[in-house]
Amino acid sequence: MTSVTAKAETAKNLNLDLKQMANAIRALSMDAVQKANSGHPGMPMGMADVATVLYSKFLKFDPKHPEWPNRDRFILSAGHGSMLLYAINYLTGYEKMTLEQIKNFRQLGAITAGHPEVEPDAGIETTTGPLGQGIATAVGMALAERMLNARDSSVDHFTYVIASDGDMMEGISHEACSLAGHLALGKLIVLYDDNGICIDGKTDMSFTDDTPKRFESYGWDVQTVDGHNFEQIEKAIAKAQKTKTPSLICCKTHIGYGAPTKQDSASSHGSPLGAEEIAGARKNLGWPHGPFEVPDDILSMWRSLGHKATNEKPYNDDVAKTIAPIVAQLKKDFASEKPKLATRQTSGKVLEKLVPAVVQMVGGSADLTGSNNTIVKECGILSKSNYAGRYIHYGVREHGMAAMMNGMALHGGIIPYSGTFLQFADYSRPAIRLGALMKQRVIHVMTHDSIGLGEDGPTHQPVEHLAALRAIPNLYVFRPCDGVETAECWELAINLQNSPSIMALTRQGLPTLRGDSKENLCARGAYILKDSDGEPEVTLFASGSEVSIAVEAAEKIDAKVRVVSVPCMDLFFEQDSEYFQSLICNKSIKVGIEAAVRQGWDRIIGGHATFIGMDSFGASAPAETLYKHFGITAEAVVEAVKKKLK
Amino acid sequence: MTSVTAKAETAKNLNLDLKQMANAIRALSMDAVQKANSGHPGMPMGMADVATVLYSKFLKFDPKHPEWPNRDRFILSAGHGSMLLYAINYLTGYEKMTLEQIKNFRQLGAITAGHPEVEPDAGIETTTGPLGQGIATAVGMALAERMLNARDSSVDHFTYVIASDGDMMEGISHEACSLAGHLALGKLIVLYDDNGICIDGKTDMSFTDDTPKRFESYGWDVQTVDGHNFEQIEKAIAKAQKTKTPSLICCKTHIGYGAPTKQDSASSHGSPLGAEEIAGARKNLGWPHGPFEVPDDILSMWRSLGHKATNEKPYNDDVAKTIAPIVAQLKKDFASEKPKLATRQTSGKVLEKLVPAVVQMVGGSADLTGSNNTIVKECGILSKSNYAGRYIHYGVREHGMAAMMNGMALHGGIIPYSGTFLQFADYSRPAIRLGALMKQRVIHVMTHDSIGLGEDGPTHQPVEHLAALRAIPNLYVFRPCDGVETAECWELAINLQNSPSIMALTRQGLPTLRGDSKENLCARGAYILKDSDGEPEVTLFASGSEVSIAVEAAEKIDAKVRVVSVPCMDLFFEQDSEYFQSLICNKSIKVGIEAAVRQGWDRIIGGHATFIGMDSFGASAPAETLYKHFGITAEAVVEAVKKKLK
Repeated sequence: MTSVTAKAETAKNLNLDLKQMANAIRALSMDAVQKANSGHPGMPMGMADVATVLYSKFLKFDPKHPEWPNRDRFILSAGHGSMLLYAINYLTGYEKMTLEQIKNFRQLGAITAGHPEVEPDAGIETTTGPLGQGIATAVGMALAERMLNARDSSVDHFTYVIASDGDMMEGISHEACSLAGHLALGKLIVLYDDNGICIDGKTDMSFTDDTPKRFESYGWDVQTVDGHNFEQIEKAIAKAQKTKTPSLICCKTHIGYGAPTKQDSASSHGSPLGAEEIAGARKNLGWPHGPFEVPDDILSMWRSLGHKATNEKPYNDDVAKTIAPIVAQLKKDFASEKPKLATRQTSGKVLEKLVPAVVQMVGGSADLTGSNNTIVKECGILSKSNYAGRYIHYGVREHGMAAMMNGMALHGGIIPYSGTFLQFADYSRPAIRLGALMKQRVIHVMTHDSIGLGEDGPTHQPVEHLAALRAIPNLYVFRPCDGVETAECWELAINLQNSPSIMALTRQGLPTLRGDSKENLCARGAYILKDSDGEPEVTLFASGSEVSIAVEAAEKIDAKVRVVSVPCMDLFFEQDSEYFQSLICNKSIKVGIEAAVRQGWDRIIGGHATFIGMDSFGASAPAETLYKHFGITAEAVVEAVKKKLK
Repeated sequence: MTSVTAKAETAKNLNLDLKQMANAIRALSMDAVQKANSGHPGMPMGMADVATVLYSKFLKFDPKHPEWPNRDRFILSAGHGSMLLYAINYLTGYEKMTLEQIKNFRQLGAITAGHPEVEPDAGIETTTGPLGQGIATAVGMALAERMLNARDSSVDHFTYVIASDGDMMEGISHEACSLAGHLALGKLIVLYDDNGICIDGKTDMSFTDDTPKRFESYGWDVQTVDGHNFEQIEKAIAKAQKTKTPSLICCKTHIGYGAPTKQDSASSHGSPLGAEEIAGARKNLGWPHGPFEVPDDILSMWRSLGHKATNEKPYNDDVAKTIAPIVAQLKKDFASEKPKLATRQTSGKVLEKLVPAVVQMVGGSADLTGSNNTIVKECGILSKSNYAGRYIHYGVREHGMAAMMNGMALHGGIIPYSGTFLQFADYSRPAIRLGALMKQRVIHVMTHDSIGLGEDGPTHQPVEHLAALRAIPNLYVFRPCDGVETAECWELAINLQNSPSIMALTRQGLPTLRGDSKENLCARGAYILKDSDGEPEVTLFASGSEVSIAVEAAEKIDAKVRVVSVPCMDLFFEQDSEYFQSLICNKSIKVGIEAAVRQGWDRIIGGHATFIGMDSFGASAPAETLYKHFGITAEAVVEAVKKKLK
């Protein structure tokens, strides 16, 4: 550990007035919420003491070098208490977190959003607010630390979390914390704000878990402290640092601590306290200073905290050059060998080449390894006795998995990908969305992407999922039609450094349709796969497994037919209007073909065009039977075009 | 309890050969999976003994009257083991579950789908397969039983569940089981198939929870038995029936029990055993009979089971007549008083009238009661000491809440509705979808439905959610623009007996736009709110909070402008083509206005039309600031139309 510097030593030896330091957090939080006339003062006031101990005695951070790779990570999972974090980041001296920002809490353009939005250089490690996301993301960060430590022992830091009742109630906390225990993430320390109050009133109206026992069942170390007793808090964190398992410290706190009538009441949870109550709190707390005023001595104490960043290189995850020749070779091989493989299989072949070459890539699956084709065995299996392994058996925990991947990407040094069925995108959707909002490169391999999965039936057959995922801003949904497109889509997903991606892949085998090409044709989202001889009379647009149906139909239609492959609608919609219109603005009869709902396709084919796809849930039967049953066949395309040609 | 009939007594006194009865399940399961060349034989073989004890000694059911309201409910949460259920339902004599159906396992048109699909008259209580759904749905059923029992003590039955490792890993199991413990659902008994094997291999590669301890932390009673020891199983269930808390019985079983080389191995989990292995299993089990053959004596034993349904009336949930005059009065009042209220508030007013009148309605919220306006205080709060209460504090458990509502609807006697923010539709999405697939009337109140929620910021602002929900088949997304439409949409949602609904409601106040009308105008999904004088030159389509923007814009546009309100796109797309085309097929300039992504609107306005909405995530600021910032204003509409009119 290189973290303890002269400055930090000084800070620890200073006679810190922890009580008043905590009151500075409380006052700023009350004042900012009051000024915004919106926000959650209760939680920052309740957890101010715990946070003050953490930052003054333990947390390894450097406000002058906020993105120092080996810093401890602090995650405010209870994101509604955002003022806690903003106040601390102002007090400790993050340059971007000015007093002006605090005064502009929840206003347009401020970095002090209602809920924290990731901004590492302002001390905000991740976006939180949707409950449970923070704690699960933190598990991913803590795991990333262990994995990178296994490669380079100088990587060595803690991950701290402040979590709330709401985090504890959310299912995702079960998934992530269960896996954290299983993987013995000893450097993960969760401070649970056990204040007994939720929005609706007393927590025990809906929540009476024995939370310590629950976390013990996951293999965590659990302690309980008075969250307003500095000594107890310090002792507990010191002990937690030494355990070989993750630690939960249940902090019994008073929400709205100091407020004369609203302490310990839901009324301090999510609304401004009001002028009178704030005045009373100032009196109770012994904080005579005006709104947004922090006396110099207290500010100095806060500013004396922190460490001096060691001279580490930031993580470099720019792997474009590494993967380019590998992808080129894969494309060449697929194009020449023309295998008839499912895209989950061609994806597996791509991963077999990419993962060994790109040490940042870490894979996994939610207990569908064999089906997702996500494993590259030579890169090892991760376990608590082998953090060097680069494949994670996440268990049946799709939501936790997706959030953990966000955490790994946020940590840096890792490009996470993992697999489940496309159907279960629904389970991980809140975390997928958050990854898009946070601009994190996380790659979700989602196989069995249509009724083509066959007998497992409608519970497992995605129908609306492609549309639902395409609707999420800054998320790229790739659906390649063969091996060449699969290699191209992987290249695009890895090179999209500020966006998550979905790789929607088939269960069933598909012919190879693409020849080799220097250019990555999928990069434009849609492109002419087979052109007509002259101006097209018919254009067939299709994605993934339906592209071969379009090609087959094209051969049977007695007209000039163009086939456009649409491997990524999101990228297509981003193209310049000249390219976009070159494909959709002509007089040809347009047909969209995708074994999914129509929503989204109208923008390409128009509202009056024929769409060959699904307008209901699927059914349980062999895949070929289903394609016929639901009329997604070359014959159906031919028939539909014939009607329009008349 | 009226369940113990003469027939049941006989069955219990018969000298049942439980071992061979269980083997009948095993053989049918192996054979059906082999014939389908697809499926999961391991689980039915492992849990056959437990299921045989349950059905022969405890379960209250009548294959001749499968929908007997007071029957015990049996939920196969581990839906992949569907053959267990099909085999039992054939063996016990459900008329619809013929041997032919078993032989057609996983084939088109058969009721023996890959995963069980709800069909109460074939003994299938709910659709399962997506892990965790079954157990959470069962919690809802068990709660429904207690609630109905509080009104009528003759309602009195157990809810049994078979759950797997996967169910235990999923986060939803935490949410639902925690709440089940909190509510002391003593008549819920979960049989956990603790076989130590998951798809990827040994469960302990990813899952090492101390599950008994975990469930004890929820306040459950926990027992552990040898899942192949009939006596232990019987004793445990008998004890579980007597506890006042929910019960977990951990059944240590051997997956693929009897298979010579595949028992206790992941290879028996999700693939046919193969002819040789099946032959070996037949030998090991002492089951010399041919494929699909069950000797008469064993079949007779199975057929002797069950009870005789008591003469109960089925639940009548047809409340159309009850609500019609109430809705009419509400519409009249809103139209005359013209309040400026958020639709979450008008919805609250609707519920204040409907809920007291409709005893079937049971409300709740995931800890956002005050924000969702879902409570009707006079109808009481549900708790373990007051099952007569009709309002449920679900806690921060959106996913568990949605699945429990499915369970209540499936149980019968209850029309469940509950609230959260629209943003958190993502958390409950797998259960919302399952409700749509199962055709259950479940009403999801989802307030704060756009950037109009303001300062809470992009983590809480739905942007893509309306599109993503509209993409789900058989789900109706309502987004009313004022009180009159809110009343109409509630009427429609309640009368949609075979579909779930979303009520997307605003946080912010809206003017009353609608006059009263006898007809429910929302029933057509979209309708002319304000017509132009003569053939329209411009048509503005909008939903919810943006309808008033459209109306305001219409007044400022110097042309013949028609305003179409679109409270339910799903219903609009179902209208006959004459009506549909009457609104969209004319030469007017079309503009869509919705504070959400464009996806889905092209079908109404066309791909080249102007859409005023969102194409990114939101931001944290007051609502009015955000509407201006993102250009969703009457001025922007006017400008856009002006450009097109030129």
